[in-house]
Amino acid sequence: MAEPLFDRVAIIGVGLIGSSIARAARKAGLARTIAAADQDASVRERVAALGLADEVFERSGEAAAEADLVIVCTPVGVCGPVAAEIGPRLKPGAILSDVGSVKGAVVRDMAPHVPAHAHFVPAHPIAGTEDSGPDAGFAELFDGRWAILTPLESADPAAVAALRAFWEGAGARVDTMTVEHHDLVFAIVSHVPHLIAYNIVGTAADLEEVTQSEVIKYSASGFRDFTRIAASDPTMWRDVFLNNRDAVLQMLGRFVEDLTALQRAIRWGEGDKLFELFTRTREIRRSIIEQGQDTAAPDFGRRNA
Amino acid sequence: MAEPLFDRVAIIGVGLIGSSIARAARKAGLARTIAAADQDASVRERVAALGLADEVFERSGEAAAEADLVIVCTPVGVCGPVAAEIGPRLKPGAILSDVGSVKGAVVRDMAPHVPAHAHFVPAHPIAGTEDSGPDAGFAELFDGRWAILTPLESADPAAVAALRAFWEGAGARVDTMTVEHHDLVFAIVSHVPHLIAYNIVGTAADLEEVTQSEVIKYSASGFRDFTRIAASDPTMWRDVFLNNRDAVLQMLGRFVEDLTALQRAIRWGEGDKLFELFTRTREIRRSIIEQGQDTAAPDFGRRNA
Ligand SMILES: NC(=O)c1ccc[n+]([C@@H]2O[C@H](COP(=O)([O-])OP(=O)(O)OC[C@H]3O[C@@H](n4cnc5c(N)ncnc54)[C@H](OP(=O)(O)O)[C@@H]3O)[C@@H](O)[C@H]2O)c1
Ligand SMILES: NC(=O)c1ccc[n+]([C@@H]2O[C@H](COP(=O)([O-])OP(=O)(O)OC[C@H]3O[C@@H](n4cnc5c(N)ncnc54)[C@H](OP(=O)(O)O)[C@@H]3O)[C@@H](O)[C@H]2O)c1
Repeated sequence: MAEPLFDRVAIIGVGLIGSSIARAARKAGLARTIAAADQDASVRERVAALGLADEVFERSGEAAAEADLVIVCTPVGVCGPVAAEIGPRLKPGAILSDVGSVKGAVVRDMAPHVPAHAHFVPAHPIAGTEDSGPDAGFAELFDGRWAILTPLESADPAAVAALRAFWEGAGARVDTMTVEHHDLVFAIVSHVPHLIAYNIVGTAADLEEVTQSEVIKYSASGFRDFTRIAASDPTMWRDVFLNNRDAVLQMLGRFVEDLTALQRAIRWGEGDKLFELFTRTREIRRSIIEQGQDTAAPDFGRRNA
Repeated sequence: MAEPLFDRVAIIGVGLIGSSIARAARKAGLARTIAAADQDASVRERVAALGLADEVFERSGEAAAEADLVIVCTPVGVCGPVAAEIGPRLKPGAILSDVGSVKGAVVRDMAPHVPAHAHFVPAHPIAGTEDSGPDAGFAELFDGRWAILTPLESADPAAVAALRAFWEGAGARVDTMTVEHHDLVFAIVSHVPHLIAYNIVGTAADLEEVTQSEVIKYSASGFRDFTRIAASDPTMWRDVFLNNRDAVLQMLGRFVEDLTALQRAIRWGEGDKLFELFTRTREIRRSIIEQGQDTAAPDFGRRNA
């Protein structure tokens, strides 16, 4: 096997994403040694039992010391305190990264704690499931999926290249964009869709006219697809909305504006407006299938995803 | 094989649902003869080529004459004119039914054309895909899914029982409810979810800040699941919204009200409110999986659906 890309990689927070990175790094031989930190004793036990890391620590700082690459895989809301603990322990030349679904707030909260002798390169892998925890992860999670790097202007090109190589080694395709653009793109393709899925499931649960058991029984007619998204981790998603507030509110504003127009078209019986929109949206689905981001098969191709 | 339930069954409109009923009826031996009608010559050719019916007609009235059970499988918006053509041809004791996703408007439009010597029993199978046309159907579409009958108060119990037996023979589980309740239930579990899926896909397509190719590329992060729903047949769905207007607007009002509260919680950083909702919605997902309406497997169990 070729030389590992990194001598020592530290994973901070061994949940779905953290444990998948550990598994992928192990499988592809990306690190000579994998260190892991999790605050939760039961998680540390599972990490040891599953053999996900060579060394398991309670304190993030302990795991990060001596590491060449440290990846923070906690919810976005605690990235700041975690960075505060890790920062002083980073060795010269070390790369600090993360996997947060929001980038602006992560940069705001983590960057101040990164010493001048280390490199901070924020990242976001576009892969996940609605499950959490170390048992939910798997090595193939990132295969063929995008990982987005959002390096700051001052970033060291060699550090960015090394992180890119790591993600490519884990199976991902890598893109770079600015922090600001990232947060707008994911507000519309991910955050607002999650918010409206949570919202419609909540609305349906609270109705008096329709019982919860009816909602569950007849969910196959459309509702069901929303419930899967609305089963995503509450902590992660609370942190996403609190930390990408401006972009989410901006995109939500557009969504509501368009919805109001649709509502009006229904009220006034303007079938042509409805038909025009419903035809246009089909094209987008077609492009997604053509570009291999989904399949037309009844299982959505996810059996092997 | 046992005696067929019906001597002659007529399917009016051989699209996804009509062709699936024909296939299921054939497979389970529910009819001695299957007659089909479609206004489109190319559809009639496919019906003949696929061997979906014993007799294929251009005119609905021709197919319906002599039939013991006539099922109208056209979009909801044309059920009235179709019933006007069929009504006078119905033989004594014949059952007229439909599969429309809306029931109030279908009853309003069809019932006046049903002669006193025939029985009208509206129905709605809760099964479908985002595809259309005779090639999209399959015999197993209704297996284990619900079919809802919405008989009027004056309905003949024997006719309702016969239609129930037909749907059970096609693999479905049968429920009955009132027309009004049906339209409220499906406004929230199906119609509003489709509307907001169409809407978010439209919003994303129209943005200037984010390109369409970015939306497609990163769609795996949530958006993708909405695009599948938003690829559903434009004609069918235009007709659904125009014909279930009041219930859809009522449920949409509740959705928007709740969304406004969520928007406010994000603006004011009320993380506890978000967390509370996101935790509650998980439970509903759990119930759906427990009741066998979906699976937790990565392919959603749809490979065999
Ligand atoms: N899930 C997705 O679909 C997805 C996709 C892309 C990116 N992401 C991002 O990945 C990150 C992790 O998500 P996940 O799905 O892997 O979540 P997860 O399975 O819940 O894992 C989160 C991990 O962070 C740990 N943690 C929580 N609070 C902590 C703290 N104060 N200090 C140290 N560790 C702490 C948790 O430990 P405990 O067990 O003690 O809570 C857990 O091990 C999030 O930032 C999310 O935005 C998620
Ligand atoms: N798809 C679902 O998920 C689903 C689920 C449950 C219930 N439904 C209900 O099932 C019905 C049919 O939906 P579908 O998905 O089967 O649609 P589809 O595949 O588009 O089939 C509709 C059929 O109706 C025919 N038709 C259209 N206008 C007609 C007219 N004026 N006179 C006679 N025939 C006409 C069409 O013929 P042409 O080829 O000439 O257009 C086509 O054969 C709708 O009422 C819908 O609400 C659908």
